[in-house]
Amino acid sequence: MSQFQSIKEEAYQANMDLPKLGLVLFTFGNASAVDREQGVFAIKPSGVPYDTLRPEDMVIVDFEAKVVEGSMRPSSDTKTHAVLYKHWSHIGGIVHTHSTYATAWAQTQTDIPIFGTTHADHLTVDIPCAPVMSEEMIQGNYEHMTGFQIIDALKAKALSPEEVEMILVANHAPFTWGKTVKKAVYNSAVLEEVAKMAWLTRQIRPDAPRLPDPLIQKHYERKHGKNAYYGQE
Amino acid sequence: MSQFQSIKEEAYQANMDLPKLGLVLFTFGNASAVDREQGVFAIKPSGVPYDTLRPEDMVIVDFEAKVVEGSMRPSSDTKTHAVLYKHWSHIGGIVHTHSTYATAWAQTQTDIPIFGTTHADHLTVDIPCAPVMSEEMIQGNYEHMTGFQIIDALKAKALSPEEVEMILVANHAPFTWGKTVKKAVYNSAVLEEVAKMAWLTRQIRPDAPRLPDPLIQKHYERKHGKNAYYGQE
Amino acid sequence: MSQFQSIKEEAYQANMDLPKLGLVLFTFGNASAVDREQGVFAIKPSGVPYDTLRPEDMVIVDFEAKVVEGSMRPSSDTKTHAVLYKHWSHIGGIVHTHSTYATAWAQTQTDIPIFGTTHADHLTVDIPCAPVMSEEMIQGNYEHMTGFQIIDALKAKALSPEEVEMILVANHAPFTWGKTVKKAVYNSAVLEEVAKMAWLTRQIRPDAPRLPDPLIQKHYERKHGKNAYYGQE
Amino acid sequence: MSQFQSIKEEAYQANMDLPKLGLVLFTFGNASAVDREQGVFAIKPSGVPYDTLRPEDMVIVDFEAKVVEGSMRPSSDTKTHAVLYKHWSHIGGIVHTHSTYATAWAQTQTDIPIFGTTHADHLTVDIPCAPVMSEEMIQGNYEHMTGFQIIDALKAKALSPEEVEMILVANHAPFTWGKTVKKAVYNSAVLEEVAKMAWLTRQIRPDAPRLPDPLIQKHYERKHGKNAYYGQE
Repeated sequence: MSQFQSIKEEAYQANMDLPKLGLVLFTFGNASAVDREQGVFAIKPSGVPYDTLRPEDMVIVDFEAKVVEGSMRPSSDTKTHAVLYKHWSHIGGIVHTHSTYATAWAQTQTDIPIFGTTHADHLTVDIPCAPVMSEEMIQGNYEHMTGFQIIDALKAKALSPEEVEMILVANHAPFTWGKTVKKAVYNSAVLEEVAKMAWLTRQIRPDAPRLPDPLIQKHYERKHGKNAYYGQE
Repeated sequence: MSQFQSIKEEAYQANMDLPKLGLVLFTFGNASAVDREQGVFAIKPSGVPYDTLRPEDMVIVDFEAKVVEGSMRPSSDTKTHAVLYKHWSHIGGIVHTHSTYATAWAQTQTDIPIFGTTHADHLTVDIPCAPVMSEEMIQGNYEHMTGFQIIDALKAKALSPEEVEMILVANHAPFTWGKTVKKAVYNSAVLEEVAKMAWLTRQIRPDAPRLPDPLIQKHYERKHGKNAYYGQE
Repeated sequence: MSQFQSIKEEAYQANMDLPKLGLVLFTFGNASAVDREQGVFAIKPSGVPYDTLRPEDMVIVDFEAKVVEGSMRPSSDTKTHAVLYKHWSHIGGIVHTHSTYATAWAQTQTDIPIFGTTHADHLTVDIPCAPVMSEEMIQGNYEHMTGFQIIDALKAKALSPEEVEMILVANHAPFTWGKTVKKAVYNSAVLEEVAKMAWLTRQIRPDAPRLPDPLIQKHYERKHGKNAYYGQE
Repeated sequence: MSQFQSIKEEAYQANMDLPKLGLVLFTFGNASAVDREQGVFAIKPSGVPYDTLRPEDMVIVDFEAKVVEGSMRPSSDTKTHAVLYKHWSHIGGIVHTHSTYATAWAQTQTDIPIFGTTHADHLTVDIPCAPVMSEEMIQGNYEHMTGFQIIDALKAKALSPEEVEMILVANHAPFTWGKTVKKAVYNSAVLEEVAKMAWLTRQIRPDAPRLPDPLIQKHYERKHGKNAYYGQE
């Protein structure tokens, strides 16, 4: 039994949840889970169909994106995961999908406006869209730079990755993260639903106003504040 | 066996029907059933996933929103349910969801116009959208005030909760009710479908006219009037 | 065993296919099959959920809409079916649904333009929308008049019910028919798909042109013409 | 056992995958697999429902569209397949569907713009739409000419069928191909998803810009270039 069995199981389960939640077509997505003590993460192998995937197929990679264990090539987005784990020491899991509605917003290169409490239950700001990468960054170490594209976009908007657990990468697709990979999967599904609702809201009323600030605060705090009263803990 | 077994079963079944009907993602919804004799209602515990939910998990709460029986924290929307049960003595069940199309309309802060007989089979007026809550009400006892937001919105439009069994709460999402919680679930599904059809109608023809009054009356009466001839009773 | 067993089975099967094809929510639809020799048709009872429906529940009705056999009340749209069977002696089955996209078009009171060969494979003209019923007709024998609303709309456009097997009733929803009720169910599904494609076509390109006449003729004839070469007969 | 058993199995499996992937309604589609050594391909019989289809029902046809083996009439689009196999010697399979979003784009007679990396992972150009066929070609050997309509459209845009494995036929629907029929099925699903995302992108932002060239190159090369690093080979 591998010393990385636990994160392999977690990453496997998270990857399998993506098609069940309708978030990926074929192999258009990947999830990873980190082991902070050992300084590695488990990630989906590249291009392997979900219906043949097994927990032991997960590839173990360190924060420099070097393969530590596993016979298969890891996801082509592995370097992006590595950069985020290295710089954001509090996160436990990352998910990348090309889910339909979130990807469409990413293709428009615009933030998703906060229109309602479904959004405010999860974050208090518009869902950020990282700006298009410069040609220089694309020609370089592309997936490595995608990690910095995400980190820089949050910094530029003075947002903390502990409070904002989702982002759109312009012209590409969403990335989400969380304390666990299970939470990152949850965030991907929430993002897709919020993206669909925001599109519909604009379709029905092009000048729909953003959610008033007091409602934003109220809904976020009842789930995440000091005196949170949502859920069982 | 609990003396509240019957409403626990009813509320459980209604909550389980919400994901089956495609009306909730994760735990974004809750249903409750009332026992008028005992002056309590059974409601979903907060944040518990549907796939692990059991009838005995339902929390028993009185009309002041105090827990009477149950070890788990009740839904964070419990106070809204309590206010509605207290003021509307004829209703037997309440459902709250963040269903996609109804929520998008709520986010636009506008009523859903009556465009066809699918709508008129269920109510004779536009589906009302309760106006955005004042900052004062938000800062106060929020979920308690949401109950009054709903009651006041119907009053302001001179609508009876016995005839209009559904409402949108602006920037938030829909609430529905009925003589039984089963009927409230039915109303949530009808509302979602009518919301989708109304959006599509406007997309195809932005100046689509409302349904003519005689057709509104005819369809409503064949289902609900004195000489109703729809169904088996 | 009833002397109407055969049409009861046919009508039952057709009704059960409607939810499977995603064409009805709850009981928002009905299908019937005719027996020309005995001058009666079998139709769904009113308001009975699909999951408890049995072949023996079908109600047998004559062309004056009088119940001939069956203990339940027939569909509230029975008179519409009766009128169509009486006046169109070649048809064997009728289906009525409130399917989402076709109903949205009906709510706009406009014909569905012929934009492509998916449409032309089935009919050579825009899918007609019967105009809004006069107040006089609504106040009268409503469902009976809906039958004439359909018949008159085809006549006004000089269309034959043998060639055009589907119509939208303005502000209401679609009706379809065919030589068998199975074909009528097929037509309901085709209509819903064509309605969705036509909506999308207009969304992408508001001034999308109608299909050129030679393509209309070609596609229709390869399925329905003298020298048809689609299918196995 | 037929000497064509292998392509019959392949074509059967590909045809069965189409409804599973949500790409066809009823019999609105067909897939074929070629045997280059024997100079024939296996294709779905015309108008046979998917739920009764068997591998041995596949019809064996040569590149002049003559039936070589099989008792049923082959798909009405057989001549189009034959022309493509004859002129494109590198392809192993062809798929034709009327999938909803791709067909809507075909009905608008416009190319699908490249808006994101989901598209660029598969091809570096807008998805071409073959122009409307001339009346002369329609009146002639229609399905035969559809093959040339596709070949000519690629030529006119100086595109290679080895690099671009999908096309829209104006007012009709998509065709896709690939080294195997399995790849052609994959391409049909990708096309449908890209078509949906492109529609949504335009809905959210009508002036959304095309993907910058460096990103197009980067994503395509990581999957298809000399130094490809996507997948396991």
